[in-house]
Amino acid sequence: MAQPRLITLTTDFGLNDHFIGTIKAVLLGIVPEATIVDICHSVQAFDVLDGALTISQAYSYFPSGTIHMVIVDPGVGTARRPIILTAERYHFVAPDNGVLSMIYDREERLSVRHVTAEHYYLQPVSNTFHARDIFAPIVGYLAKGVDPDRFGDEITDYVRFAAPRPKPVDGNTIRGVVLKVDRFGNMITNITQHDAPQLFQPEPPPFKIVVGKKEITQIHTAYAQGAPGELFGILGSMGYLEIAANRGAAAQVVGVGKGTDVSVTLEGAAAERAVTT
Amino acid sequence: MAQPRLITLTTDFGLNDHFIGTIKAVLLGIVPEATIVDICHSVQAFDVLDGALTISQAYSYFPSGTIHMVIVDPGVGTARRPIILTAERYHFVAPDNGVLSMIYDREERLSVRHVTAEHYYLQPVSNTFHARDIFAPIVGYLAKGVDPDRFGDEITDYVRFAAPRPKPVDGNTIRGVVLKVDRFGNMITNITQHDAPQLFQPEPPPFKIVVGKKEITQIHTAYAQGAPGELFGILGSMGYLEIAANRGAAAQVVGVGKGTDVSVTLEGAAAERAVTT
Amino acid sequence: MAQPRLITLTTDFGLNDHFIGTIKAVLLGIVPEATIVDICHSVQAFDVLDGALTISQAYSYFPSGTIHMVIVDPGVGTARRPIILTAERYHFVAPDNGVLSMIYDREERLSVRHVTAEHYYLQPVSNTFHARDIFAPIVGYLAKGVDPDRFGDEITDYVRFAAPRPKPVDGNTIRGVVLKVDRFGNMITNITQHDAPQLFQPEPPPFKIVVGKKEITQIHTAYAQGAPGELFGILGSMGYLEIAANRGAAAQVVGVGKGTDVSVTLEGAAAERAVTT
Repeated sequence: MAQPRLITLTTDFGLNDHFIGTIKAVLLGIVPEATIVDICHSVQAFDVLDGALTISQAYSYFPSGTIHMVIVDPGVGTARRPIILTAERYHFVAPDNGVLSMIYDREERLSVRHVTAEHYYLQPVSNTFHARDIFAPIVGYLAKGVDPDRFGDEITDYVRFAAPRPKPVDGNTIRGVVLKVDRFGNMITNITQHDAPQLFQPEPPPFKIVVGKKEITQIHTAYAQGAPGELFGILGSMGYLEIAANRGAAAQVVGVGKGTDVSVTLEGAAAERAVTT
Repeated sequence: MAQPRLITLTTDFGLNDHFIGTIKAVLLGIVPEATIVDICHSVQAFDVLDGALTISQAYSYFPSGTIHMVIVDPGVGTARRPIILTAERYHFVAPDNGVLSMIYDREERLSVRHVTAEHYYLQPVSNTFHARDIFAPIVGYLAKGVDPDRFGDEITDYVRFAAPRPKPVDGNTIRGVVLKVDRFGNMITNITQHDAPQLFQPEPPPFKIVVGKKEITQIHTAYAQGAPGELFGILGSMGYLEIAANRGAAAQVVGVGKGTDVSVTLEGAAAERAVTT
Repeated sequence: MAQPRLITLTTDFGLNDHFIGTIKAVLLGIVPEATIVDICHSVQAFDVLDGALTISQAYSYFPSGTIHMVIVDPGVGTARRPIILTAERYHFVAPDNGVLSMIYDREERLSVRHVTAEHYYLQPVSNTFHARDIFAPIVGYLAKGVDPDRFGDEITDYVRFAAPRPKPVDGNTIRGVVLKVDRFGNMITNITQHDAPQLFQPEPPPFKIVVGKKEITQIHTAYAQGAPGELFGILGSMGYLEIAANRGAAAQVVGVGKGTDVSVTLEGAAAERAVTT
């Protein structure tokens, strides 16, 4: 791994306070030559799963050696542990509350350390802003070249939750969920190409997607293919099925948001299976 | 043009998702030494004219050699072309949908190329996130020093729309439009000093500005000159007539927003003309 | 002081316009090697006190030599002076309207200069965007190494307001105010550990905090110690008493916001005093 100098931030701190500026102050105080990139600070407040999703969408596009700081930390000031996750190309620094779960899912060779080397922390350590007092110093010294094993011992009992996966309802229907609504109103589901490969074929079998009170029977390959007001499915840039509308906010058209059930019924799937049997 | 290392971003992606972080990941992967500046990511979603206006307000303040990436791209995934516009001091990279129209208006010597050198793109190219897969790589390699003519052939049939211009209504009235409402509630019109020079004289002739149901008869030269609750006109920092209020949001006082008609009647203009005739 | 190259920005310009991008353009045009950090651009529009509070929370975490640009400037275009405040470790550049008041309170050795060296300004100087035309050039040339005394003479009559301080109501009650509500809905008061030391003892005497129609009788040391829906007090990371809720927005629970009175009654304080007398 090259000398890491690129640091990313993914948090639920928003941009309406001094928080992110102060975190960068601490980072640049330790490693002035760092380049810091904001991935997103609008993770839903306290929502560890939303944080896990956000970092999972962006991290792999960064150059090797990047250090990803991921702070969604409703347990700040309690016994939850600060950890360093070292994967093949990246380090991640985060509270041990599951916010790195989707990284554990995707990375193969990894080690996780419980940070106990308190002499790196900013003194005095507050009870309410560990991003400033604990996590930023860890990231700063990592970026400066301190070896991960100097921060604490390896652990294997780190917190890891299972990201919600679509479930089969019957032979030709699966049910997933809207993971998030993006800036354009697209509804990003947890249904991947792997879960419903026929849906994304050039000529898919007859199907319907049901979300809220709407039934969707079109898959497009570009947003602009949609007719005005039409809802359709599309394979999004992270590999998930999205419910979208051309130049419009699908989530508003449907009238529902994050957490809503989405079912996909592939009649062809059943038919095909029937034929094969 | 000096070796370009400064890159700016103007988009409608917002800051609530991972999009901008991921774009920067791709840029820094190609050209780690780049400095990236966000101009604005709050261009109204899908609004090519709003994007054109935003980049036109900021671009000329950047040092020579800056590369401006401008992404408002409702046609992502369709046949609309990725282009590089090279002007005297800057490069611009954008979809060919008119989002650079106000640059074409302002820059004299320029060449536009249709990018076809797909070997620069991030593979696989998604259908929904060309900012990541196509535009960021083009910008990155340009910043790295690849010559524009390596990306594709020059074209002259690029998409260019006419920015809305104020129109004469009768001899002493012109009618323009509110281009945008800024953070402070100032209503930025498309009426320039050139369109109504008398309005901005130290001692303007009698005039009235009508917007919504309000009639405005004062021009000030500083926001703080306005009395509490008073609406007035002011020559804004981009050369446009703005409707403003001192420490208040004019757009809220008027109760209308972007797209609203604004008329300026210069009684003196008519009178003067009458005298001259 | 080391050669200053780190510049911070604290403004009320928001992120919905080109303003911040344009300011950075001017800065990087003068000092391309600068690192620019956004502290916050969501200072409440025109609210000098909110700006004073925001910079006071972040500035001291930056490395020595940092230049802090602080722009909340409802008087732009009027006679209010541009100033450079030089303290032991930092420079601050701002309009002379009191936005640096909390820096004057906290820093001991300091000098303030009225900037009159107009040859540094961007020409022509607009009446409405001095952050671009006046303040950014001052910051840029300071960062480039121009000595503060080259910009203008020292003054002592700079504008300084008294930040609101809690007041005693009777022997055992003090009344403060909510300075701001942060991203998580925590209500940051102006009551410090110094104002009510017993409140933050490991075993505080009986007390009640009253805000809006709510009475609070718990102090916790971590947000996560709160029961669901419970309001409690906590010593925040800037040393102020905060009213908080675990994974919830206290300000929404209370139904009030910035500017609301908060009273703290320490029964023990009175009792103790009674005993002592």
